[in-house]
Amino acid sequence: MSHAQTRSQPAPALGDALAVRYAALRNLSEALVAPLSDGDATIQSMEDASPAKWHLAHTTWFWETFLLRDHLDGYALFDDDWPFVFNSYYEAEGERIARFSRGMLSRPTLEEVLAWRAHVDAAMARLIDREELAPLIELGMAHEQQHQELLLTDIKHALFQNPLGAAMWDVAGKQAKSRSDGWLRHPGGIARIGHQSDGFAFDNEGPAHRVLLEPFALSSRLVTNREWADFIADGGYQAAKLWLSDGWAWVRDKAIDAPLYWRDGEQFTHSGWRERDPNAPVTHISYYEADAFATWAGKRLPTEFEWEAIARGQEGEGPAHDPNGGNQLDGASPPLPIGADGLFGDCWQFTRSAYLPYPRFKPAAGAVGEYNGKFMSGQFVLKGASCATVRGHSRASYRNFFYPHQRWQFTGLRLAKDI
Amino acid sequence: MSHAQTRSQPAPALGDALAVRYAALRNLSEALVAPLSDGDATIQSMEDASPAKWHLAHTTWFWETFLLRDHLDGYALFDDDWPFVFNSYYEAEGERIARFSRGMLSRPTLEEVLAWRAHVDAAMARLIDREELAPLIELGMAHEQQHQELLLTDIKHALFQNPLGAAMWDVAGKQAKSRSDGWLRHPGGIARIGHQSDGFAFDNEGPAHRVLLEPFALSSRLVTNREWADFIADGGYQAAKLWLSDGWAWVRDKAIDAPLYWRDGEQFTHSGWRERDPNAPVTHISYYEADAFATWAGKRLPTEFEWEAIARGQEGEGPAHDPNGGNQLDGASPPLPIGADGLFGDCWQFTRSAYLPYPRFKPAAGAVGEYNGKFMSGQFVLKGASCATVRGHSRASYRNFFYPHQRWQFTGLRLAKDI
Amino acid sequence: MSHAQTRSQPAPALGDALAVRYAALRNLSEALVAPLSDGDATIQSMEDASPAKWHLAHTTWFWETFLLRDHLDGYALFDDDWPFVFNSYYEAEGERIARFSRGMLSRPTLEEVLAWRAHVDAAMARLIDREELAPLIELGMAHEQQHQELLLTDIKHALFQNPLGAAMWDVAGKQAKSRSDGWLRHPGGIARIGHQSDGFAFDNEGPAHRVLLEPFALSSRLVTNREWADFIADGGYQAAKLWLSDGWAWVRDKAIDAPLYWRDGEQFTHSGWRERDPNAPVTHISYYEADAFATWAGKRLPTEFEWEAIARGQEGEGPAHDPNGGNQLDGASPPLPIGADGLFGDCWQFTRSAYLPYPRFKPAAGAVGEYNGKFMSGQFVLKGASCATVRGHSRASYRNFFYPHQRWQFTGLRLAKDI
Amino acid sequence: MSHAQTRSQPAPALGDALAVRYAALRNLSEALVAPLSDGDATIQSMEDASPAKWHLAHTTWFWETFLLRDHLDGYALFDDDWPFVFNSYYEAEGERIARFSRGMLSRPTLEEVLAWRAHVDAAMARLIDREELAPLIELGMAHEQQHQELLLTDIKHALFQNPLGAAMWDVAGKQAKSRSDGWLRHPGGIARIGHQSDGFAFDNEGPAHRVLLEPFALSSRLVTNREWADFIADGGYQAAKLWLSDGWAWVRDKAIDAPLYWRDGEQFTHSGWRERDPNAPVTHISYYEADAFATWAGKRLPTEFEWEAIARGQEGEGPAHDPNGGNQLDGASPPLPIGADGLFGDCWQFTRSAYLPYPRFKPAAGAVGEYNGKFMSGQFVLKGASCATVRGHSRASYRNFFYPHQRWQFTGLRLAKDI
Repeated sequence: MSHAQTRSQPAPALGDALAVRYAALRNLSEALVAPLSDGDATIQSMEDASPAKWHLAHTTWFWETFLLRDHLDGYALFDDDWPFVFNSYYEAEGERIARFSRGMLSRPTLEEVLAWRAHVDAAMARLIDREELAPLIELGMAHEQQHQELLLTDIKHALFQNPLGAAMWDVAGKQAKSRSDGWLRHPGGIARIGHQSDGFAFDNEGPAHRVLLEPFALSSRLVTNREWADFIADGGYQAAKLWLSDGWAWVRDKAIDAPLYWRDGEQFTHSGWRERDPNAPVTHISYYEADAFATWAGKRLPTEFEWEAIARGQEGEGPAHDPNGGNQLDGASPPLPIGADGLFGDCWQFTRSAYLPYPRFKPAAGAVGEYNGKFMSGQFVLKGASCATVRGHSRASYRNFFYPHQRWQFTGLRLAKDI
Repeated sequence: MSHAQTRSQPAPALGDALAVRYAALRNLSEALVAPLSDGDATIQSMEDASPAKWHLAHTTWFWETFLLRDHLDGYALFDDDWPFVFNSYYEAEGERIARFSRGMLSRPTLEEVLAWRAHVDAAMARLIDREELAPLIELGMAHEQQHQELLLTDIKHALFQNPLGAAMWDVAGKQAKSRSDGWLRHPGGIARIGHQSDGFAFDNEGPAHRVLLEPFALSSRLVTNREWADFIADGGYQAAKLWLSDGWAWVRDKAIDAPLYWRDGEQFTHSGWRERDPNAPVTHISYYEADAFATWAGKRLPTEFEWEAIARGQEGEGPAHDPNGGNQLDGASPPLPIGADGLFGDCWQFTRSAYLPYPRFKPAAGAVGEYNGKFMSGQFVLKGASCATVRGHSRASYRNFFYPHQRWQFTGLRLAKDI
Repeated sequence: MSHAQTRSQPAPALGDALAVRYAALRNLSEALVAPLSDGDATIQSMEDASPAKWHLAHTTWFWETFLLRDHLDGYALFDDDWPFVFNSYYEAEGERIARFSRGMLSRPTLEEVLAWRAHVDAAMARLIDREELAPLIELGMAHEQQHQELLLTDIKHALFQNPLGAAMWDVAGKQAKSRSDGWLRHPGGIARIGHQSDGFAFDNEGPAHRVLLEPFALSSRLVTNREWADFIADGGYQAAKLWLSDGWAWVRDKAIDAPLYWRDGEQFTHSGWRERDPNAPVTHISYYEADAFATWAGKRLPTEFEWEAIARGQEGEGPAHDPNGGNQLDGASPPLPIGADGLFGDCWQFTRSAYLPYPRFKPAAGAVGEYNGKFMSGQFVLKGASCATVRGHSRASYRNFFYPHQRWQFTGLRLAKDI
Repeated sequence: MSHAQTRSQPAPALGDALAVRYAALRNLSEALVAPLSDGDATIQSMEDASPAKWHLAHTTWFWETFLLRDHLDGYALFDDDWPFVFNSYYEAEGERIARFSRGMLSRPTLEEVLAWRAHVDAAMARLIDREELAPLIELGMAHEQQHQELLLTDIKHALFQNPLGAAMWDVAGKQAKSRSDGWLRHPGGIARIGHQSDGFAFDNEGPAHRVLLEPFALSSRLVTNREWADFIADGGYQAAKLWLSDGWAWVRDKAIDAPLYWRDGEQFTHSGWRERDPNAPVTHISYYEADAFATWAGKRLPTEFEWEAIARGQEGEGPAHDPNGGNQLDGASPPLPIGADGLFGDCWQFTRSAYLPYPRFKPAAGAVGEYNGKFMSGQFVLKGASCATVRGHSRASYRNFFYPHQRWQFTGLRLAKDI
């Protein structure tokens, strides 16, 4: 999951609007943890995940460090020792605690972290209308939005560890349906890729540049739970020839035989164990699984460029299409004019593109410029947005990235083929 | 740390007295966690340790399972799923969750566990005066006393992980002093070892039997922090020839160079980082370290039989001496008439005896009979009692046991020599 | 390191010529192991490497299985059990032994394996002029050439483990010099990439296709040992900001502070420890190191497409240039007309391109078609050829690939920059 | 397996006799490796085992270092670098190579090691009759005898890794039979334990001392393969309640379900896979398995003192009985007068005694005094001798020791019970 800085500087909004959006953002973070106990918010289920409390604190550290400490005269740190603890991987900002010991931080408590948030929000009110800080504030907001998604996926994984079937919400989420069924054809040619508008984007989304595409088609819909069940029934997890070599080693070593969170006809959700809808998009699969499924289906995964070209509604150098924003955990995404279902808001969609720098990419200077570039080895790009992605945090140029074995995010797939 | 059953059945007390002792015991457990947050009580710092909440729940599970479920008509389990979760290693009682996932149990919360305790205590009141259950109740009390000590040592280890120097108490504990200085000589001969009275004991303390001792002397006092600092200053942790082969591998692999919880002139305590008293007994050392220190000092560790013979004040077949009870974290133990300091109540003292069955030892039948016997490989016996041992839970025949690398208990040493 | 099949079928040579080339190839394999003892040829130093004897046997298994067994009437296997043992990862050909247990195969001995080779070569003489088998024979020869390079790099790694400084040759190899110094500029545009001639190529080198390049420049020479020493002296291995995140974790976990095979002013070679030539190209570095060096130098690694475009001497869609062949461990490669030094024959050169399928790539059917496709995750492409690459086994379209931490091959780098 | 020094100094033999015994000993070592290839002698199958060549070299290093270097004027080391390589764990003698890299020593070759042996033997001829060196020579001989047994068990384990069923001898060994069937009763009382004669013994066999025994009985025979098959058929490997806690974890983690070297009705031997004799003693079991079997059988393992008391034919303080010598891999041991079968020469027999120092044990000074004492944690004592123990290398006071999971030695068991 990426951290980054603004590529384009125009102040996108008035201070007032920013203040409103800032308040809404911060409130959302706190609303997400409202159903959690202090213990829920403290535990860490694996190295890839962080405690809910840590996400609340880390995002607050960001505001305190890069905005308040650096730009608000007379601001006093809420606690002198906490920055060390809630820094993440910003090496330039000093030592940090080993990643897997985040789950040992029973202190500060959830209540104390919420008090810190209130303290920082009060101070932020004195900065929020300073126009020269708007780009940095936009970055902080994008950063906290990313952590809101991680908070949701991490706490899901933590509650999943509990044999008692712990839930944080009572109501079952509505599962998205894959409705359309067809292929979106693209004639190939030169496409323009990467962030091109005045809005906010992370550094890894640029520079915008041209790529040469061969003719291809992209499925108008996501692969469903029913299709995945067919793959399982057909022995997909036992057939070495379907798998990448590393993927086959992973399947055997970890005894993988289904997506994460599946058991019998159920899947684990934020509302506990629930019946699985065969028509909903499959989620919580790894790149290895996505690739094996595509091979089994006689298709392939799209490249990130193919996906983006379709999402932009462009052929050749046509104008970019601005997709509708994603949705918050309700899985219902409106169809695009060109007929693609679930591009944004259901699940992140694996591409066969390795996560690498675009031509002429340069990491920004300074601590806040850490880093998307430093993660550019061994990972794959995912496009779109999931049901846990905050509204307004999705766009066609967004590049999410994960290692090929990771699957605790809402990850799914959409098939492609040569034409 | 041992779990067990009564070896001798005489009901040791009236129901009334039992009821009082039961209430005091249960209150003590809850008093120990009073300073803890829900998060504090939930986290688990390593596989050897358990969350505070788990100790509260597991001891309650014991009462509910072996007393209420089996002996109280009409008793309904507080929650049908919790026994699976809070069983420990009683294989006969069904599947249990992997030991290291105890720290993932954010649910039930601390508050819910305390409610369970109240529910069980109310039901126990209806059983407590049934004379035929007294031995089982005594066992349950001894069991909960063991877990009180573990709760204290485990939470200390958990708080120690926190780089913010978390504390659960404000007041520094008074550190015990080693006062006397001399050698308690024993002429050798046949000594009677093991549990011999009518009181409660765990199965591994018997059968009582005779052993043949060579003449020896036992130090009248515990090794101190000052002496340990001398050992360090003399290069003790760098001198391969002082160490057991396995110990030397451990020292190098883990980069060990001081007792656990030491830094500079301080040591970590339940009250956070505190100045270290050079005259207090050294604690939190492993068997490997204790053995290397003894070699460095030109002495050796005593056997469990030598220690017990001295503790009983006996020579040959002389009468047993009843030691004074241990103390709760204040480290002050009254000297024995024969002049030994700190036999009980400061720290567990390593012996060079492997933890093995006494002649004619037989594990008891049934689930409650699990097990001290099953731990009889690879561990060493410790005698005495520590500052975290509950008053009334110490006796000369007590056999504590740990693996030679473990040191999160209050473990120390007392030297011996041949004469 | 890739295994594969022919993409283009025209029989490239008369049977006679093939027979001569086959004999030369097989003799070369045996010449390479002539200085080795039975023990040298048996040991395996890590999972990535295989014993020399295993390479001799595995290549022989290939001929016996895919040529003799399938195409020579009446051929009897030399030993019925050996195919199981000397298969590599061809899952379709049956179970194989765990990769890291190859070093336990003291039987068959080196002498017995050589006898097997003689037996197979005698039978091959009866097949070698069958025209319809020429493509398969070409594949077997390319396969054995690949293993000749691996044999050399694997035995180097094995001898390196020996604290006695074992050598297999007495004479020091002549080290290549980087002579030219400049930048080869490319104006960008559409370039044609991939295998385009009638000659042999592995499946992963095609299909040929077009890519769109931005203007760039490629260094006319390889990075040298002297430059690498400067990088070390400047604290390159201690500066987190130069490294990819995974690379930094690798450097710290493995305590990496120099290329593999370096000590003081020396480097380990097939002829033992030898003085290091500052003007020779640096070798035995990982992708992580190559990337960090490029960042330190203010440059970047080229993409595989940039490298190939320069190697073909093409700009835009210009005609391909056929590079001169590589050299066998003598490091002397003639300069290309366009001025690039050491494109082939000194070391494999890391690109920043992940190893992924070209557009419309399809794995071939059948066991022999295993596999280059199955390795397409987590690895990076290297271009060129090393001093251990067999003459005639290099071409501009060749795609070698390794994981970013691997460095026991002769791996080096050539810088690139945007213009 | 112990290394040590003489406890008692009387020169046990004339120089002439010593010279004859020395020559026979050295010839035996070389005869053992006669069927091995250079590769066989080079490989190492696990950290616990060493290559055959290493045993040949290490024992030679012992003679060169402690006899020739220290006591023969003008002796020049055969090779200055080899002592570093072939030292084992004698820390006082300088750095040594990591234990698991012994299998990387393809150089020196087997032939070169044999040349070293000849060189050392020639020099030893000039020392062999110096009376003051006799104790040290006796120690060197006992040391080489130990390594002869290890050489046999280690090469068996190495050949076992080979899926081709490698063998070093053609003839099947005669398997010992358990003939007698009964219980040898002992009334208890004080027994004298430990080395008591003028002959050679390792340091850990003394000091001789008295122990107090309870009445017990020891089986007159060893447990057989047939009985072990019954244990398996009765679900012994699936019944948690039979196992020590550590043993159960080991069984599940390693998926253990039979002794090492068993498959179907066969067992792996130095002569390859051979039919298993149901009446032969079971071998290649771990302490965990031995203990679980005894529990299943309603019996227990003897203590080392009980075993020795029976082997000495003594009751109370009676005179020691000198057992007949062991046998070399033929498994036929003559019955003792008191009726015990297979005390020596079939297999090492696990006792329930931890390997700990006898009262007043003191390690000797100097490098040669390393070390039995340093292994005194975590291991169990085995008594007797196996079919791989050299004739003349067994005695009632011998204390072999292994970790409870190890089973690549010829380890078996003899039951005991309380009476």
